[in-house]
This record gives sequence, structure tokens and C-alpha cells, in this order.
Amino acid sequence: MKKQTTFITSLILSLSLSSFAQDNDSTVIRKFFNESLSNGKSYEWLRDLTTNVGPRLSGSEGAKKAVQWGKTLLESGGYDRVFLQDVMVPHWVRGAKEEGYILDGKQKIKVPLVALGGSVATPKKGITAEVIEVKTFQELRALGKEKCEGKIIFFNRPMDPTKINTFEAYGQAGDQRRSGANEAAKLGAIGVIIRSLSSTENDFPHTGSMVYATGVPLIPAAALSTNAATLLSKTLKENPNTKFYFKQSCETLPDAPSHNVVAEIKGSEHPEEIIVVGGHLDSWDLAQGAHDDGTGIVQSMEVARLFKNLGIKPKHTIRIVLFMNEENGNRGGVKYAELAKQNNEKHIFALESDNGGFTPRGFGMQGASAELLAKVQSYRTLLAPYGLHEIERGGGGVDIGPLAPQGSVLIGFKPDAQRYFEYHHASNDTFDTVNQRELEMGAASMASLIYLLDNLTN
Amino acid sequence: MKKQTTFITSLILSLSLSSFAQDNDSTVIRKFFNESLSNGKSYEWLRDLTTNVGPRLSGSEGAKKAVQWGKTLLESGGYDRVFLQDVMVPHWVRGAKEEGYILDGKQKIKVPLVALGGSVATPKKGITAEVIEVKTFQELRALGKEKCEGKIIFFNRPMDPTKINTFEAYGQAGDQRRSGANEAAKLGAIGVIIRSLSSTENDFPHTGSMVYATGVPLIPAAALSTNAATLLSKTLKENPNTKFYFKQSCETLPDAPSHNVVAEIKGSEHPEEIIVVGGHLDSWDLAQGAHDDGTGIVQSMEVARLFKNLGIKPKHTIRIVLFMNEENGNRGGVKYAELAKQNNEKHIFALESDNGGFTPRGFGMQGASAELLAKVQSYRTLLAPYGLHEIERGGGGVDIGPLAPQGSVLIGFKPDAQRYFEYHHASNDTFDTVNQRELEMGAASMASLIYLLDNLTN
Repeated sequence: MKKQTTFITSLILSLSLSSFAQDNDSTVIRKFFNESLSNGKSYEWLRDLTTNVGPRLSGSEGAKKAVQWGKTLLESGGYDRVFLQDVMVPHWVRGAKEEGYILDGKQKIKVPLVALGGSVATPKKGITAEVIEVKTFQELRALGKEKCEGKIIFFNRPMDPTKINTFEAYGQAGDQRRSGANEAAKLGAIGVIIRSLSSTENDFPHTGSMVYATGVPLIPAAALSTNAATLLSKTLKENPNTKFYFKQSCETLPDAPSHNVVAEIKGSEHPEEIIVVGGHLDSWDLAQGAHDDGTGIVQSMEVARLFKNLGIKPKHTIRIVLFMNEENGNRGGVKYAELAKQNNEKHIFALESDNGGFTPRGFGMQGASAELLAKVQSYRTLLAPYGLHEIERGGGGVDIGPLAPQGSVLIGFKPDAQRYFEYHHASNDTFDTVNQRELEMGAASMASLIYLLDNLTN
Repeated sequence: MKKQTTFITSLILSLSLSSFAQDNDSTVIRKFFNESLSNGKSYEWLRDLTTNVGPRLSGSEGAKKAVQWGKTLLESGGYDRVFLQDVMVPHWVRGAKEEGYILDGKQKIKVPLVALGGSVATPKKGITAEVIEVKTFQELRALGKEKCEGKIIFFNRPMDPTKINTFEAYGQAGDQRRSGANEAAKLGAIGVIIRSLSSTENDFPHTGSMVYATGVPLIPAAALSTNAATLLSKTLKENPNTKFYFKQSCETLPDAPSHNVVAEIKGSEHPEEIIVVGGHLDSWDLAQGAHDDGTGIVQSMEVARLFKNLGIKPKHTIRIVLFMNEENGNRGGVKYAELAKQNNEKHIFALESDNGGFTPRGFGMQGASAELLAKVQSYRTLLAPYGLHEIERGGGGVDIGPLAPQGSVLIGFKPDAQRYFEYHHASNDTFDTVNQRELEMGAASMASLIYLLDNLTN
């Protein structure tokens, strides 16, 4: 009888303790949201970063200013350590504003066009050629050299609007931007224009990186706004001899020195075990880089502020990392992982916010055991009141990716991304498109997950 | 042995049938989303309604145009029946643009101010008086007649930013707008100004309805933008003798004739049982009424189009209702329920979209039995891939509210409403704040739920 009583007592005790822990967890989470929504700093930091620092492509003066901006702000946060990591980054410059025209035989129609990041320039006077429109590489290859030689290849496959996950639609259309120039050059084309990778029909061309394959001629590549792509396609149907003209003067300069910015809150119990929270500090040159990825930067900084301000001392070391060069090289991410390995650091978790600053919906987990995933999914009861329902397997993020081989569990913050590809890599990715509450809720969501993970492994 | 085999066979059969039904349901839902996201009409309809028809306050020329607009469009849809329901509506007009000034003794600071809907005018030359700032009615009453007589009462309690459900925060602050004038008038005040019910700090004053209690003097009531309210509060702290001046020339004219617009798809099995899907056609006079409630109108119309276009014949009759006068009277909602009763119609479900045209998150159910709620919650597996996780008890909507006593189950469509109170009842509630994908996903979500409900009760 004694034994059974003890068992029941201990069961009850364990149930109450577990319920106490849940109560405590829910109180802390509530505090994160209250503080972020009442006194959050992320929105004003974002205003400052996007409007006073502005565009900050790797290697640019803007990127230099951004590093200094991040370092100064983090230093004022009173954290245990703030430091820079040196990293050499690609230095591509756009040069003079590009020009693009549809020449339908009767008139010259000016269209919005931007060079793709990493592209070479056209000759100084630009290039003019007939246009071959294709939707896929397969379609292009079927045309063969004869039809493509001396032409401009126009990749016009839109993002699939029926995909609920807009990142999936982006991924499926991305080959055109990344490798379109290589595929076209192999068939003797002299230039490539692509339909912008955007979910909306508008006049903003969206840039993004492309990389030349070795052994293939380097031909210039540019993106048209979705409206311009639709117009060009229509014009080609009416007159297949329609020509296109574009001129761009971009170039790749020698690599430039830059930095990741890191701030650290030392763990009280396991300081040697590190949880990374970050986003990327660089942006494309066209825009303020608000949703990509100013919001991830200020949310990561707000996570640190929330812990500090609410007096919540993490058991493990939390590192806020403002990564450099996600957009065109990921040198910062690679360097961070390299140094982590070199210094024998143990990174247990890494959380990245690089999907826009919209209303939080959940997290994607990469490299988690089934047991860990189930454990984190069991936190749904704590997180659902804040709209965080989606805790699934999924990608972590580009910057934290290189930590995967070290056994880190990678986590991507998942906001509602229906609007993301309206702004992504285009000049309309500006501060005014970010909603303060949505941004602040994201920061609190990230802090909440970090808090739960910090208390997971004792 | 026979019996058990039969039991198992029938179990397996029933499981397969149920799995077949789920497959079929998921296919139909997928079709709704594919069609809405690829060929949806809601966005262009919204552009037309908000920019060509424009503001449409009950009794106005805009409201008349809106009725004609809705009728014409629904008639072109090829539905079984389109008809108008006559209803007399309040006819309040704003008159000349209002003026508001803070008079701090040194200068006259112009501030954005709008009359509350239903308010009386000030005297022609406006009113000037000292200002008493309060946060609650309790605080006001504690001041007593002596301190309030001849003064302007300034209600300055903000919407609670820590509420994740912004409608809850709105509800908690709403007494100031609805009844502030009555409470102040009882204590001899000569006018009321309130802090706009908005979740953001900006320069747009938000109007909304107020109703005079019987037996209380009618004093003019207006809303200040949140920024202006903050400024006035700060000024009062520096100089408690600060005065305020405002002038408005609004008035209530005799009731005017107007209409609900109704379109019907006859049920194939239970034509006598009706499912309503609707929103409200009227808006405030200040704005295009995009999120409030143009989006609900075009989503409801899109639900009908989706059924028709995809060849899905409902078992029960589906009625699309464009209700008139939600904003300041709910005469359309009351009339609709009155006629339903009079005609012995059986309304089994009514779904309203009047929470903005943002990314769908779920539905709130009112008047559902525990069993029905559980059944609808079991559809989460079908709905979660579209981000619809939140199926809970909750309010249906103002327009469909009067159907409750007839035993209808009322359902409110729940989009993500973090941005809603940035625009609600203000001049910035414009077409450009609506995202096409978010809007279209809402329409498909509504169609999906209606489809599931239509197949629920055979």
C-alpha cells in the first residue's frame, strides 16, 4: 500500500509541478508580448535602419554604416559581450540606372528593368535583339542553338499563385533568375531578361542573385517588372519580330572587408552551449530592405532586449547575430560557422528571421529529432493564443544553414508571407509596408520560443 | 464469427467511405483556392466598388450607387434569383469639414478631428472651452458636475496594445465613443472629444457611431487622431488651462429609403433551408470602405461565383446578402431577419465577413451546439493547409445578429486583424491597403466552410 501511495503522491506532485511549469512558461510568454507590444523598440530601430542607414548591399558604404549602426545599438544594450567577425564579401555594383525598351517595330516602349545581382554589364551602347520567350529550361533547350543564337531569351514563368506557401512558389520559379543566363548562353543567346519573381502584377522590377557557371559565356541578365513581362509577352504574340533593348553598367569589384555583428548574453548554467538568434544586415541596393531583412535584424535585437529588460537570465548563452551578405554569397553565414567550429563552440539551436516582418504563424524546424519536434509541438498550447499554430519541419534560414553540419537544430521563424513577394528585392520594400504590431508580435514570438528551448535541455 | 466479420467489414467500409469523403472535400477546397487565387474576381470588384462607387454611408448618393452596383453585378452572375429588400435607413450627414484647435494660451494648434456619426452640430461659430481629460466613466463621475460643467470632456483611453485580439481591445475602448457624450452631458459638459479608436499612432481621425440616450442633453461629439490626442494630453499636463475649440455642422435628416441586395443559388435537395453569406454594403463617409466592408462584400459575391463557376451545386439554398446600414443602425440586418421570419424561411447558417480582408485564420461560431462545434473543428485537418487553424466560439457579425433568435448558427469569418484598426472608420481605409492574395484566400476560405456546412446536414 505504501508503495502505491508513494506512486500516486509522486504522480500528483509531478503533475502539479508540470502544471506549475506551464503556468510559469505562459506567464513569461505573456510578459514578452506585453513588453514588446507596449514598449517594444523594434519598430523605431527599423525606421532608423531603413531610412537613416538605407540600402546596404555587401561591400557598399550602406553596409559599412549598417555594421556600425548594429554594433553601436547592441553596445548600448548592456549585454555581456558585443563583437565583430571579419569577413570578406563580394562587391557588386549596379552602376548607372538601367534602361529597357520594347521595340515592336512601330514604337519604343520604356519598361522598368533592373540588372540581376552578379550580372555583367551590357556593352556601353546596350544590346538590341529579337526576343525568344520561354517558360522553362526544357522549352529553351528544345529550341536549340539555331533559334537562340544572337537572341535575347525572355524567361516568363510566373510564380504559381495557387501555392499557399509563397516561398514554395518562389522556389519553383527561381531557376530562371539563378541559372537562366547560363542556360541561354550555352545556346548562343546574347542576353537574358526574366519576369520578376513577384506574386503581384506591378511596375517594380525585383532583383536577386544569379551566378555564372564556369566555362559558359557571361551574358547580361536583368529582371522586368511583372507588368512589363506581361506586356512584352502580349507584344510578342502580336509581332513575333519584336525586339528588346537593354543597357546596364553593373560590375563586380574585388571582394571587400565587412563584418558579422554579434552580441552575447552569457548562460547562467550552460554558458558553453549557444543559441543563435539572427537575421541578415545586408540588403539589396534598390530598397530600404525593410522586410528583407531589416525586420529580422530588429526582431533579433528585440529578443535580446526582452530577456535583458524583463530580467530573464537564460541558462544557455544567447547570441544575437547580424549576419552579413545573405543576399549574394552567404559569406557571413559561412564565416560564422567556420569560427564556431574553429573555437569548438557548441551551437544547440539557431533561429533565423528572414521571411518578412508579418504576423507570426509559427516555426519551421530543420535537423530536429522526432522526439524534439514532438516536444516543441507540445508547446502549441502555450503558443496558440498568440496565433502560433504552425510548428512543422521546414527550412531554418540561409545564414544559419552552415551550422547544420555541426549538429545544430535550425529554426526558421514563419510569419504570414502572403505579402512578402510583393516587396522582396524591389524598391518598394520600404519601412511603411511594415506594421508595428505584426513586427512586435514576431519579436515576442521568437523570444518565447527561445525561452522554451533554453529551458528544454537542462 | 460471422457477426464479427460483418462488423469489421462494415467498419472498414465505413472508414473507406469516410476517407473518400475527406478526399473529395479536400479536392473541392483545393479547387476553390485554385480558382480564387488564379481567376478570382474579388480584387477587381473591390477596386471598382471602392474607387468608382466610393464612400457609401446609409442614405447617401454613394449608398444608392452601391446598391445598383451590387444588383447589376449579381444579376450578371447567372444566379437563380437576384432581388432587393426595401429598408428605411438613418440619414446622417457630416456637412462642412470639421475644425479642431488646441489653444494652449500661446498658440492655436490645428488638429485632425471628425464628428462622430450621429452627433449633433456645434453652434455655427463652434465651441471653445477648457478641457477635462479622463480615461474612464468612473473617473469622470468622480469629478462631478462642479468640475465638468461648461467644459469639453476629453476621453483618452487608448486601445490596449497587449490584446492579441484587436477586436477585444476595440470593444474595451468603445464605450468612450458610443456613450461618452451621454455621460459627459449628464454632468453639464458642453462637448466631447475622444481619442480615435485606433491601434496605431497616426494623424487619421476615426469616426464611428454614437447614440444619444433619451432625456440627456445632446452635446456634440468628435474624434481626434491618436497623435492629436497624445499632443492634447501632453499640452494639458504642461498647462491645465488649455482650451479646445471645435466646429462641426453635421445633422440627422429624415430616414431615407434603401435596400439590402440578395442573390440566391437554389439548393438541390433542401431548397427551403438557407445558408446566408454576407457583408455590409454601406461604409462611413470618410473613406472608400475597403476593409470595412468592401472586402466582405466582394468575398461574399466571390463565394457565389466560385460555386457557380466550378459547377458545385449546393444542397441547401445559398443566399448572398449585401446588407445595408451596418455602420449606424443595422436596419438592413434587422429587416432581413424580420422578412425571414415573416416568410417562414429557415436559416440554418449565416456567415459574415466584416473583420477586414486580411489573411484568413479561421471562424468564430455563435449558437452552435457542442456537437456541431466539435464537428466543424474536426474539419481543421482539411482547413489547416490553408492557414485556417482557429475554429472557436465567437461572434458572428452585426448584420446576421438578428437571425440568432430564429435558431440560425452564426459564423464570423476571422482574418488576421492586426492591421484592421489602423484603417477602420478612417479616411485611410483605401483599396491600396488590401492585398490581393489575402483577399482571395479569404473568399476561398468562406466558400470552403460553406461547402462543408452544406454537406453536413443531409
